[in-house]
Parts: sequence; structure tokens; C-alpha cells
Amino acid sequence: MFLKDIAQRMNAELVDCDPETWIESVAPLDNAVKGDISFFTNVKYKDVANKTRASAIMVSKKDAGMLSGLPLMLVESAYLAMAEVSMFFMQDTRPAPGIAKNAYVANDAVIDESATVLPMAYVGSKAQIGSKTVICPGVVVEDNAIIGKDCLIYPNCSILRGCRIGNRVIIHSGSVIGSDGYGFTPDGSSYRKIPQTGIVQIDDDCEIGAGNTIDRATFGKTWIKRGVKIDNLVHIAHNVEVGEDTLLVAQVGISGSTKIGKHCIIAGKTGIVGHIEIGDDVIIGGRSSINKSLASGSIVSGTPAVPHRDALKVYATIPKLPEMRRQITQLTKQVQDLQKKLAEVSGGHK
Amino acid sequence: MFLKDIAQRMNAELVDCDPETWIESVAPLDNAVKGDISFFTNVKYKDVANKTRASAIMVSKKDAGMLSGLPLMLVESAYLAMAEVSMFFMQDTRPAPGIAKNAYVANDAVIDESATVLPMAYVGSKAQIGSKTVICPGVVVEDNAIIGKDCLIYPNCSILRGCRIGNRVIIHSGSVIGSDGYGFTPDGSSYRKIPQTGIVQIDDDCEIGAGNTIDRATFGKTWIKRGVKIDNLVHIAHNVEVGEDTLLVAQVGISGSTKIGKHCIIAGKTGIVGHIEIGDDVIIGGRSSINKSLASGSIVSGTPAVPHRDALKVYATIPKLPEMRRQITQLTKQVQDLQKKLAEVSGGHK
Amino acid sequence: MFLKDIAQRMNAELVDCDPETWIESVAPLDNAVKGDISFFTNVKYKDVANKTRASAIMVSKKDAGMLSGLPLMLVESAYLAMAEVSMFFMQDTRPAPGIAKNAYVANDAVIDESATVLPMAYVGSKAQIGSKTVICPGVVVEDNAIIGKDCLIYPNCSILRGCRIGNRVIIHSGSVIGSDGYGFTPDGSSYRKIPQTGIVQIDDDCEIGAGNTIDRATFGKTWIKRGVKIDNLVHIAHNVEVGEDTLLVAQVGISGSTKIGKHCIIAGKTGIVGHIEIGDDVIIGGRSSINKSLASGSIVSGTPAVPHRDALKVYATIPKLPEMRRQITQLTKQVQDLQKKLAEVSGGHK
Repeated sequence: MFLKDIAQRMNAELVDCDPETWIESVAPLDNAVKGDISFFTNVKYKDVANKTRASAIMVSKKDAGMLSGLPLMLVESAYLAMAEVSMFFMQDTRPAPGIAKNAYVANDAVIDESATVLPMAYVGSKAQIGSKTVICPGVVVEDNAIIGKDCLIYPNCSILRGCRIGNRVIIHSGSVIGSDGYGFTPDGSSYRKIPQTGIVQIDDDCEIGAGNTIDRATFGKTWIKRGVKIDNLVHIAHNVEVGEDTLLVAQVGISGSTKIGKHCIIAGKTGIVGHIEIGDDVIIGGRSSINKSLASGSIVSGTPAVPHRDALKVYATIPKLPEMRRQITQLTKQVQDLQKKLAEVSGGHK
Repeated sequence: MFLKDIAQRMNAELVDCDPETWIESVAPLDNAVKGDISFFTNVKYKDVANKTRASAIMVSKKDAGMLSGLPLMLVESAYLAMAEVSMFFMQDTRPAPGIAKNAYVANDAVIDESATVLPMAYVGSKAQIGSKTVICPGVVVEDNAIIGKDCLIYPNCSILRGCRIGNRVIIHSGSVIGSDGYGFTPDGSSYRKIPQTGIVQIDDDCEIGAGNTIDRATFGKTWIKRGVKIDNLVHIAHNVEVGEDTLLVAQVGISGSTKIGKHCIIAGKTGIVGHIEIGDDVIIGGRSSINKSLASGSIVSGTPAVPHRDALKVYATIPKLPEMRRQITQLTKQVQDLQKKLAEVSGGHK
Repeated sequence: MFLKDIAQRMNAELVDCDPETWIESVAPLDNAVKGDISFFTNVKYKDVANKTRASAIMVSKKDAGMLSGLPLMLVESAYLAMAEVSMFFMQDTRPAPGIAKNAYVANDAVIDESATVLPMAYVGSKAQIGSKTVICPGVVVEDNAIIGKDCLIYPNCSILRGCRIGNRVIIHSGSVIGSDGYGFTPDGSSYRKIPQTGIVQIDDDCEIGAGNTIDRATFGKTWIKRGVKIDNLVHIAHNVEVGEDTLLVAQVGISGSTKIGKHCIIAGKTGIVGHIEIGDDVIIGGRSSINKSLASGSIVSGTPAVPHRDALKVYATIPKLPEMRRQITQLTKQVQDLQKKLAEVSGGHK
């Protein structure tokens, strides 16, 4: 693509660069070569920008002053522009529509004619696959599962019986949608299984990372709402609800029936107990342990979780614990000594 | 099913309801509609029960007084009854017996004629599949693995060479049974692999969650004993033993050669070091770190783990740490001040 | 194998045993029977060694004195010898070369004639599989992925588009190599995906455990260097680098763009934030939280991580917290009391 064409599509201004430059790809400042367009998103990379071999640098207008003399493309947000321009260069790798000869598709499955089912995939009875959706090799879509349009289901995912996936959903490799919830009831000395009769519903525009396990509901549905983005190896138990545009970072675990609001950020390795409610716009720091409901707008961290500002003080104090204990021991002796001496003084005084 | 038939199969008494009611399904109190049977298992849902549209409510005899006037079915345990009656309504979704044309089954594999091997499954040489067991799509059963009767192996599981699965075992999607244990020995500057020659043995009536990784033994066997129920994304290292009817909740990790007793409950995200012994009837709280053996009957929590009652006090104290540190600093100054003043008083006194 | 032949291959001396003994397998001291060769690697098993029924015991020369009178094979390192001799008895289970009829291999994939592609595996367009490499059932190798020679890719792994795997690499079941990095940028009220255009590169002699998720780079590559050994359920984010011969134990998580040096040991459940550098020869204890760069040779533990020696003291102090708090309360009262009494004494004294 010519640089001028990129600028036009982005409605961006070019400064100190040749609009006729042929751009081959997007690359970070340090790795860019001639023919690449790069991006400046962090003040600390100013020196790197001055040495880059990129043919142009996307920069937010407010930061342009820092890079005067360099070949710039001025945009509102360099980060967003990087995301958009990268998309221009992504080859459309979507495979041709159709059902591969080596795939298994049940006779009564409903596959849109613009969808793709690749070899070694399985689509069960009465399952539905929407338009332009791609089912990769090794994916299993069980009976009665419904997948919307423009979805991309990566290799070796399992979309189990009756689960419902919206439109423009991406599910990364190895994830399991609709495993049975962990429900057992004591039956004398051992446990009896509680049938898990519900489903998982994932709404439009969600992205589910690799190696996730999202359990079906005991009754009703486990519900991942529009725009939720989940990282890898996250566990979501039965009957959980996750609100719109919430982010769940890697290795988070959420126990049964908990409801999480919209626009939350739950950082990595955090664990949340069952049957609580997390409000909207809540931010939870990494490796936190949440064992009670949180009001909207809460920002918390730690085990147990406290307001994040307090958690920073707790974390700063923990390494001082042995010293604190020594001080307490010393103070105890000093106070006993003082008590004794004061008694002497008081006694002598009488 | 007619309500009277459910009552008869459960050996339960009907109160204030029409035995001729046709029941379509089991549903929780708040979602139930006419034609549903519901269940009352928690006193805090008494108000919900009074508003339910369910045609009948299963209730433990001891709690029936709370719901007088409502259409009740009196049982010993409402929770157990819910599990049992739900089972009546589960459609028997077990697919027809036989080996699908699109499955791969080695010539010398032994598949019971009442077992099902679905399309895209793989069964290796000398592997055995017992009666009525279902091998779902994408499952790989390697050479010499043995799976008992009435098992359900969900999509994309890997049951690796020589592992042995008992009867009535359920393994959820994506789980790996028999990956190599993590065994290496330093060999100058890098590491040499220690061959993992053992197997994994899973006994009768176990349920293994989705995305589990259970490693084969270095020698002998990693052993999951009868009735163990495991949640999702749990890691079990080589040569571990887990005793009968023990529960392992999501994201637990157990290091090599550790032995866990029977009837234990290990809550989510707990980590247990290798080469220790956990007794019977032990309860370990969520996100605990267990680094030494625990006697039978222990109830512990925390990092490091202490008796649960003490752990609650520790957790209550942690948020007070910055305040405690300020108090210690203040006390130190006050004591120095007291020492100085007392010296003056004593000195003046002499 | 005759014992004398094992001794010769190991260049080892036999003491008090019959070189003509026929050895069937390697077994630990407690389970060994006649015809087994065992190994002595830990002083605490001296009593077990005295009762073993093994026909010979591999023992490091320096420890031989402890086992006098027993049938011994003297070696430099009993642990290394156990690993090597076990290898003698591993049946060569590598399947015959060739592409199974039930596998899918794209016309333009390049499969070495000595490689094996088993049934139900998928190899995409322009993918390359090196000599003697085995692609197990259910594995998906996407377009343009390159796998070297003598690799073993276990069932149901996903090696995604364009990723590069070196020689003698083992990847255990269910692992995902090349899932998209977790990259989104706020776009008003929701998030826009940042295309992940890079790859994962895994160098020679690595072993990747079961259920791992290793994300592709945003640009460039996520890089696992020669000899790295990873346990199960480990998450590695985009653009991470892991240095030669580093060990990552189960359930570790590493956030984006972090660089880890060589010869490190990162113990289980540890979490490492993004954009930091861990030096060479660093050891990090289990369940640690690393939120800043660490110099080479650091040995740290805890949340927050501190030098391991200090962490042991912190862990020892944590259970004392409630007692410490009581002591502080008591000291505060005692000091107030002292202040009051001293004021009386001083006042009376004036």
C-alpha cells in the first residue's frame, strides 16, 4: 500500500514523509526497516524513535512535538491506529467456504453456505453454523449447539451440546464451552452427581482465550455477555454471569453462580468465590482473592482483598514483618523494665 | 411424568398438590413455571418459594413447616431429591452403540459391542473399551489403554498409552490422562529427561473435570481412587495418589509423589508440594499452600497453611499491617521518651 | 539384558552381584522384585534398600559405603544412571513412518519420508514436518508451521499458523502453540482487537508440558529457547522470551513482553508481570508474585517477592500476626499507664 492511501483511509496528516512510499507492513520502532510503518505509543521510546528505520511513524497529535523532524503520520490515538493499520496488512486468511470432505457433519446440521468446516472437525445433529463462520480442524460442535455468523473457532475447541455462541465471536484453541458444572451432593459416604441441564451462552463480539473451561449451568445458563474478552486458562463455573466488555486475564477462576458486572478488569490469577456479586467498572488486581460482593467502581487487590491503595501499603509492610516482631519483643522487655524501675522509683518515693 | 409417579419413585408424600399434574421438568424456584417441579434447599429462599409458579416443591420433611399452604412433595433431603428427579428428566442422550465410519479404531483394539466410538475419535492398538462406554469425537485413546464400562469420555480428551480407567468414570473435554511426569536431572549445563515408564490409573465412579492434566508415574502408577471428583484445570503430577471420595476443586495443583487421603476437600487454587502425605477427612481452604504433611481430620487454610480458625484471624489482621507498623514506631518513640524521663526522675531522685 | 551388559554400557563396576543375572526392568527400591535393577538416590531410603528384592542397586560411588553387603552397581550419579538405564528398557514405541490414510495432509505440505503422521492428525498448507518426527492423532499443524526433526507432538496439540518448532522437541497433549496474544485497546466503551501478527518459536531440545498455552507475538516472536523444560498448564503471553535451560513448573503464568534468562527455575503457580527482565540463574519459589525485574543470581519467594531467606522469616511470622496485634494493643495500654504514672511521680517529685 502507498503511504498516502493509508493516510487517506485513516484520515490522517503526513508530516515530513513521502506520500508515495510503498509500505509493506507494520513493525515496532526497534525492528522496523525501510518500507515499514511504525507507531509511537510510549514516551520512554523517544530515543528508539530517533533511530528507527521505519518509513513513517504513527503518532498521536499531542505527542508529535516530541518527534519533530521524523517522518510522521498524525492520528488521534497511535495505539488505535496501529491496531487498525495492522488489520490492513493482515492477509485475509479465511479459508474458502464449504464443508471439507474429511470433516464430519451430521445430516441434520444446518451449515450456512458461506461457512467453512475444515477437515477433522465434527458438527453434530441439529447444530447450526452461521454465515462466514470458520470451524477449524479438530473442533467438536456437539448436537444442538448454535454458532452465529463471522465466528472463528480455533483448532481442538469443544462446543458442547446445546451451547449458544453469538456473532463475531473468536474462541482460541483447546477451549471447552459447556463442560458439566462441578455439582455433587453427599450421599452417605460418597457423592452423587447433580445433573447439569443448562447451557453456556456467549454473546456477540466476545473473544475467549486458549485452554479456557466454561461450565454449563445446573439450570438455565452460564452467560458471557457482549464484548467480554478472556485470556488463557481461565475457569468459569456453572451459572456465572460476566457483564459486557469485562476483561478476565489469564488463570483467573470464578466459582459458581457469581455475577460480574460490565466494564470490569479482573487481573491474572485472581480467584472469586461463588454466589457473590461484583458491580460494574470494578478493577481487581492480580492474584487477588475475592470472597464477598464488591460495589460498582471498587478498585481492590490482595488476599484478602482491600482497596488497592491500602493493598499497596500492606504489600510494602509484609517484608517488614520479621523486623516488626523483633521490635515488639524488644518493646515488651523495655516496658517490663520501665514498669519495674518505675515501681522502684514510686516505692522509694513514698 | 405425572407428579404421582415421581412421588411413588421417590417414595415421597404429596401435600396440597394434585397428583395428576403433568410435570415437564425440574427448575429452580424463581424460574419455575406451571408444569415444573422445584426444590427448597435454603431458608433464605422462603420468600421466593411463596411466589414460585412451580406445580410442586420438593422439601425436606424438617423444613416443610416453613412452606405450609404450598404444593409440597416431602422427601428426606430436598437436595438429593433434586439430583435424583433431575435424572428422571435427562433425556438419555447416549448415542447408539457401534463404531462410526469416520472413527479410527486399530484392528486389534477390543471394543465392546454395546460401546460407542463416535466420528473423529481414535482408538489405538490393543486398547480396550468396555460395555456401554461412549468415546466422543476428537478423543484419542492410545495403545494399550483400558477403559471400563459405562464411561463417558468427552470430546478432545487424550487417554494415553497404557492408562487404565475404571467403570462409570466421566472425563470432561480436553483433559489429558497420562502425560509424562515432569522429571529431569541436571546433566552438566542442561537437563536430561527421566523416562516416565508408569501409568495413570483412575478407579470406578470418578469424575474428572475439563482441561485437567494428570501425569503418568515415573515408575508404577499415578492413582486416582474410587469416587474422586475433580473440577476443571487441575494439575496432578507423577506418582500422586488421591484417596476415595476426595474432592479437588478448580485450578488445584499437586506436586509429585504426594499422597492424599480419602474424603478430603481441597478447595480451589490450592498448591501442594511433593513427597508429603495428607491424611483422611482433611479440609484445605481455597488458595492455600501446603508444604508439609497433614494429619487426618486437619482443617487448614492460608499461605503458609495454619488451622482454619487461626487463618481467619490472620486474614483479619493482614489489612491492619500498616496501622500496626505505625503503632510500633509510635510505641518505640514513647518508650524511648519514657526511658529518658524516668532516668531524669531517677537521677533527680538519687 | 544381562547385568554385565548394563554395567559395560554404563562403564560401571559391579560389587557383590552376579553379572549373569537377567534384568527385566528398572524399579524403585520398595517395588523392585527379583530381576529388577533399582537405584539409591536418597540417604533416607537406606532401610528400604536393605529390604529390597532388587537384583542390583545403582549407587553413586560416594554413597556405596552405606549399602555394604548389598548387590551394587557403582556409578558416578545414581540419578543420572537411573535415567539412562531406564532408557535401555523403554520399548521404542515410535510408530512406523508414513502418513496415515485417515490423516489430513495438505497437498503442498512437506512431510519428511521418515516422519509419521498418525490418523486424525491435520497438517495444513505449506507446513513442514522434519525427519523422524511423530505427529500424534488429533494434532493440528496449521498452514506454514514448521516442525523440525525427531520431535514428538502428543495427541490433540494445536501448532498454529506459521509457528516454528526446532529439533528433538516434545510437546505434551492438549498444548496450544501460537494462540493470539491478549491484545485489545479501548475504543470508546468497548475494546478493539490488536492483530497478533507474530509467531511462536520453540528452539531445539525443549519439552513443553500438557495443557500449555503459548501465545504468538503481536509483532516478531514469542521465543522459547534451547533446552527449556515446561511443566503442565503454564501460560506464556505474547512476546515473552524464556532463556536456555530454564525450568517453568506447573501453573506458572508469565505476562506479555517479559524476558527470562537462562538456567532459571520458576516454581509452581508463580505469576510474573509483563515488561520486566529476569536475569540468568534466577530461582523463584512456588506461588511467588514477581512485579519487577530481577538481577541474575537472585533467589526470591513470596508475595511480594523478597530474597528467599527473608521470605522464610516472613512466612514464619505470618501465623503470629494475631498475637502480634494483641501484643501491640497491650503495649499501647501499658505505655499509656506508664506515661500517666510517670507524670504522677514527676509531678509529686517537683
